[in-house]
Amino acid sequence: MQRRSFLKSGLASGALVTVAGALSTPAVSQDRREWRLTHAYPKGYPIFGEAPQLIADYVKRASDGRLTIQVFGAGEIVPAFEAMDATESGTTEMGYGTSYFWAGKEPALKFITGMPFGLTAQEQNGWFAAGGREICQKVYDRLGVKFFVAGNSGAQMGGWFNREIDSLNDFSGLKMRIPGLGGEVIKAVGATVVNLPGGELLPAMQTGTINALEWIGPYSDLAFGFHQVAKYYYYPGWQEPSGIFDLFVNRQAWEGLPDDLKAMIETASVAANAFVLDQLAARHPAALRTLVDDHGVELRRFSDDTLTGLAKASGEVINDMASQDALSRELLDSILSFRENATAFTGVAEQAVLQARSLDYAYPKAGGG
Amino acid sequence: MQRRSFLKSGLASGALVTVAGALSTPAVSQDRREWRLTHAYPKGYPIFGEAPQLIADYVKRASDGRLTIQVFGAGEIVPAFEAMDATESGTTEMGYGTSYFWAGKEPALKFITGMPFGLTAQEQNGWFAAGGREICQKVYDRLGVKFFVAGNSGAQMGGWFNREIDSLNDFSGLKMRIPGLGGEVIKAVGATVVNLPGGELLPAMQTGTINALEWIGPYSDLAFGFHQVAKYYYYPGWQEPSGIFDLFVNRQAWEGLPDDLKAMIETASVAANAFVLDQLAARHPAALRTLVDDHGVELRRFSDDTLTGLAKASGEVINDMASQDALSRELLDSILSFRENATAFTGVAEQAVLQARSLDYAYPKAGGG
Repeated sequence: MQRRSFLKSGLASGALVTVAGALSTPAVSQDRREWRLTHAYPKGYPIFGEAPQLIADYVKRASDGRLTIQVFGAGEIVPAFEAMDATESGTTEMGYGTSYFWAGKEPALKFITGMPFGLTAQEQNGWFAAGGREICQKVYDRLGVKFFVAGNSGAQMGGWFNREIDSLNDFSGLKMRIPGLGGEVIKAVGATVVNLPGGELLPAMQTGTINALEWIGPYSDLAFGFHQVAKYYYYPGWQEPSGIFDLFVNRQAWEGLPDDLKAMIETASVAANAFVLDQLAARHPAALRTLVDDHGVELRRFSDDTLTGLAKASGEVINDMASQDALSRELLDSILSFRENATAFTGVAEQAVLQARSLDYAYPKAGGG
Repeated sequence: MQRRSFLKSGLASGALVTVAGALSTPAVSQDRREWRLTHAYPKGYPIFGEAPQLIADYVKRASDGRLTIQVFGAGEIVPAFEAMDATESGTTEMGYGTSYFWAGKEPALKFITGMPFGLTAQEQNGWFAAGGREICQKVYDRLGVKFFVAGNSGAQMGGWFNREIDSLNDFSGLKMRIPGLGGEVIKAVGATVVNLPGGELLPAMQTGTINALEWIGPYSDLAFGFHQVAKYYYYPGWQEPSGIFDLFVNRQAWEGLPDDLKAMIETASVAANAFVLDQLAARHPAALRTLVDDHGVELRRFSDDTLTGLAKASGEVINDMASQDALSRELLDSILSFRENATAFTGVAEQAVLQARSLDYAYPKAGGG
């Protein structure tokens, strides 16, 4: 028995070493891929810089190192808004950001990130599952990349202002950082839009290049320190009831992957999508408390009149923009069809239970109080 | 060139075949694992039966067949509510269901699925990311299984009733299927609770074993045909603003996995968690319309008085139950601490934007109308 297993193991390791010795160099290099990903956020920026790293870490671990992805922040290979160019051209195999950053390439991209008075995160994920994903891929096909949903901001805040906004008229004269469709709506009601990457917003507020901004929500906004340069924090984030982040892969690089690595990237993007929303849901609540209790930030709600005016302007802007090209129209119609039933369902589900939870009743506190 | 590459490929395939021939049986069986998963839903039941299959399909694909998981529905190996027993004992390596199904084993499990007037899906995922996962694992450690969040119902409906519910008094005399903490609350206001697996509910309504039930929401409820046996469909689902589904793995089986397969299961559970919520968000809206427009179902909202009464009873029941053991108290306190800040943040984010979206304004319809 002993001799037999010794022989067997000797045969095994010896033979394998020989074969591996003869073949190792080409086989290993053929089977190991080193990719690069460039994203649109400062290197290591909490959550949005971490999400692409999560994808890289997971793929490396699940593939046992057969696919490694080196993650670069804005400015390391290309500037923030050129992540799509780099991926289209094959400078990097992958990129990460959000679709309105490259809407100059294809107008329909503006409708993918999110829409004023549009879908919530849960509804948007539902729309993707109900066929939205395929329509989005049609848009990204024009850029030569494979598209994955890989992050969602959830409901955002309305933004930071130096003065109170009492009516729609108060938007007149604002110089506001507010990208995407929200920016188009703000223009329609008299404001000027100045779009800058996140890392440039604090100095822009300090120098007066802008005098209002919206970024994401309490945790992300606290990290940038916007409470140092603006007093009023408005809600709700009518401009983005949710906002998605995309992972995109150079088409040729994607086609060259074996199926197991494709499966890993597909599933890693789902995990990144959850990661962003979960981490924000984990951190926003305490950050909101810090902003209000420790930094004296004043929370303000836009009035119903202001919101109704913004909603009307949003509808007009969206409809006009979609009418300019067929793909935008197809995409918008798909979102609007879904939105009609989704608002009815959310009205009796999420929205109704949140309203019920807000009623006046005694409920226990931590510690049994 | 030709001869050289022929020799090379000959060496490669010939040598590998020989080595593989000598070693194949033990090597392959060592590296290939065949696992079984038993879940608590009818075989192939939409979404909840599909989620564990999604995990199995993904792991097979990403591992290139090194780990295959055969998925069994309720009753194929063990009945619905014995999936945990089967996994604890190692009859199956994995199981899938929801924690209150096995709350008889450990009282704290009742607080994991969801809580009346508790967290929404997004908040619950936030709580898991903020340390909730580790506390849940402490509970599951007592059962000897590794725990993964692997599904979420989102906000549920209030349930199906044969008569109108105008006040808290109308719960008296009801025989209702409503599991978990919601069931405890209903008992406190005078109803009788009869818990049955989903597949037994329709006949139970027909025979009068129960005269009210809550299951999940429009899509799942339509699939079971509850509109055939009840006229009124109440909202909101105060008893479960969200409800999670768990994947659990026998501890010894888990410890025996190499790291890459562990990574695949971890990430597959995140994908399953998203899959359930996304698919429900995709399908509930159209199903609600079908129930109302095609089947004449009458939607009814519980009155504020009824909801306030249920909320008060919920708080008392939860607090009493948690005071009975230390682990329940620890778990509940963690949820309650998170809930306090989360309700404030959701109030200015998701809830505020849903309220804004519900205002009266013109918004485009599909087709440009």
